[in-house]
Amino acid sequence: MPFSGNPLDRASNQRRDADWLTSLHGGPQSRYLAFHRLNPLARRTDSIELLWLDADVLRHLAEDSQPFLLGIQDGVAHFAVDLSHLDDPVSELGLDEAEFTETRGAAARLPAGDVGIVAHGRALIEWHRRHRYCGVCGSLTEVRDGGSMRKCESCGQEHFPRTDPVVIMVVWTGDKCILGRQKAWAPGFHSALAGFIDQGETIEEAVAREVLEEVGLEVDHVEYHASQPWPFPSSLMIGCFAHATSDQETVDPVELESATWFTRDQIRAAYEDPRGQHGFNVPGSIAIAHHLIKDWAFQTTDDHTAV
Amino acid sequence: MPFSGNPLDRASNQRRDADWLTSLHGGPQSRYLAFHRLNPLARRTDSIELLWLDADVLRHLAEDSQPFLLGIQDGVAHFAVDLSHLDDPVSELGLDEAEFTETRGAAARLPAGDVGIVAHGRALIEWHRRHRYCGVCGSLTEVRDGGSMRKCESCGQEHFPRTDPVVIMVVWTGDKCILGRQKAWAPGFHSALAGFIDQGETIEEAVAREVLEEVGLEVDHVEYHASQPWPFPSSLMIGCFAHATSDQETVDPVELESATWFTRDQIRAAYEDPRGQHGFNVPGSIAIAHHLIKDWAFQTTDDHTAV
Repeated sequence: MPFSGNPLDRASNQRRDADWLTSLHGGPQSRYLAFHRLNPLARRTDSIELLWLDADVLRHLAEDSQPFLLGIQDGVAHFAVDLSHLDDPVSELGLDEAEFTETRGAAARLPAGDVGIVAHGRALIEWHRRHRYCGVCGSLTEVRDGGSMRKCESCGQEHFPRTDPVVIMVVWTGDKCILGRQKAWAPGFHSALAGFIDQGETIEEAVAREVLEEVGLEVDHVEYHASQPWPFPSSLMIGCFAHATSDQETVDPVELESATWFTRDQIRAAYEDPRGQHGFNVPGSIAIAHHLIKDWAFQTTDDHTAV
Repeated sequence: MPFSGNPLDRASNQRRDADWLTSLHGGPQSRYLAFHRLNPLARRTDSIELLWLDADVLRHLAEDSQPFLLGIQDGVAHFAVDLSHLDDPVSELGLDEAEFTETRGAAARLPAGDVGIVAHGRALIEWHRRHRYCGVCGSLTEVRDGGSMRKCESCGQEHFPRTDPVVIMVVWTGDKCILGRQKAWAPGFHSALAGFIDQGETIEEAVAREVLEEVGLEVDHVEYHASQPWPFPSSLMIGCFAHATSDQETVDPVELESATWFTRDQIRAAYEDPRGQHGFNVPGSIAIAHHLIKDWAFQTTDDHTAV
């Protein structure tokens, strides 16, 4: 699944050791992945690959900024650094043949493991940006544990990175499923219904509530299928198949422009000939929706649970 | 599943209408569930039931506090209010035969729907306490949408309630599973391994990482089983069965005091005779771990996916 497959060892326990962290910061072996306004640095070649910098980049950090430890691979520490305070970091760092590349586009072309690293780095940098100050007392907080915690020394509150669980579901009955489209989307584009899980809900309850809110349908059975990290900024997509008790939908115009039933045959045709004229498009393969709709339509048993 | 089953309609779209919210605040029909330091108000009778107050309680709120809309049932608005600033709210409000009751204990005795309401109210109140100030700029934020958002009027950032996804898993091979215990737990108490899902991970990857970290085992297959809201303060427990490739564990002493393999027969005996001498105890029925371990041991196919 795109954005998964991060090969780094997050060193969850070891990173609590400040001395160990200090020994890595700026070490000759340590590697730094720079982000600029959430886009990762990549080498411009015929293909595309992440461009890892050495400790020299630390001279360019904002005054109160620091690198965040993503993890370890083959004994080498891998950090993410945020250069968003610079207007033109490619020039300022003297990087030839490099560019900060838009994440979705990069995700379709980078090796799977690199996309997983980008997912973690992007989510972590955005979380730090949004949590500089303590929500309890308003004081400036400090980075701890290589970036996997922020501590408020004023009131003592510890703050941890945030991941927002989202349900995304193919709602089906008989031989057809209902896909929605939002006004802002490109013409013809349709996707699975989705929404944030609210506090005090199970996965299954969130699916039922969202389906009822968006298309007015009741579901009586929810089957978990697969999950995906989605770093925009930091969601966990939980993909399900949900069986609807009827096909009489009522679309909520606040949430959706329209919702349409498609048969398995219609959807299979769209996947088998992506450039054909089907009257609708499905999401690209970086999104879990692509795989969820496909697996439903082809009734494949791709094993997303092997690890 | 305990803490699920909240019967209220959260009115996700309607609550964005400030006029509609105003018409509910203090209305003669509206009901208010008070919390004191995260414990809900209950009537002291032979059994136990939630004690809903009328709009009179609003006179006792802290100056900058306000009620949060939990949802609607039969046209009646249900709110949560936080009285944690009062030292002895039972006396100050003149409540006879009422008490703020510890959530875990109440969860075992309240009707299922009420436990679901408590789960939402408790998580929401604690989220507001922890997010009074904007993490981006440190300014005081304001409640919006009846409590389902906080807005920073200084920098414009919107903040939404937080739910932390957690994996909890029965790790098994052959006819046995491994359960862990932490030093602080009561003697003999064992439970399923668990840990927060990190940014940039799938559910399956989080299971594999946590199992490797805690007991040094590799897993090659993860099966989702059921989920549960866990309002301490606001987790979503994602229960799985994980197949281990070996039974040669290495316990991380930072995370666990010990980890022990139990056969299906041993676990069945503990469930069939909870007061018997088995040398170990399993979690009580308010925890998803109770159901997860039981369903694995009895190989039951309880349908937790019906909604």
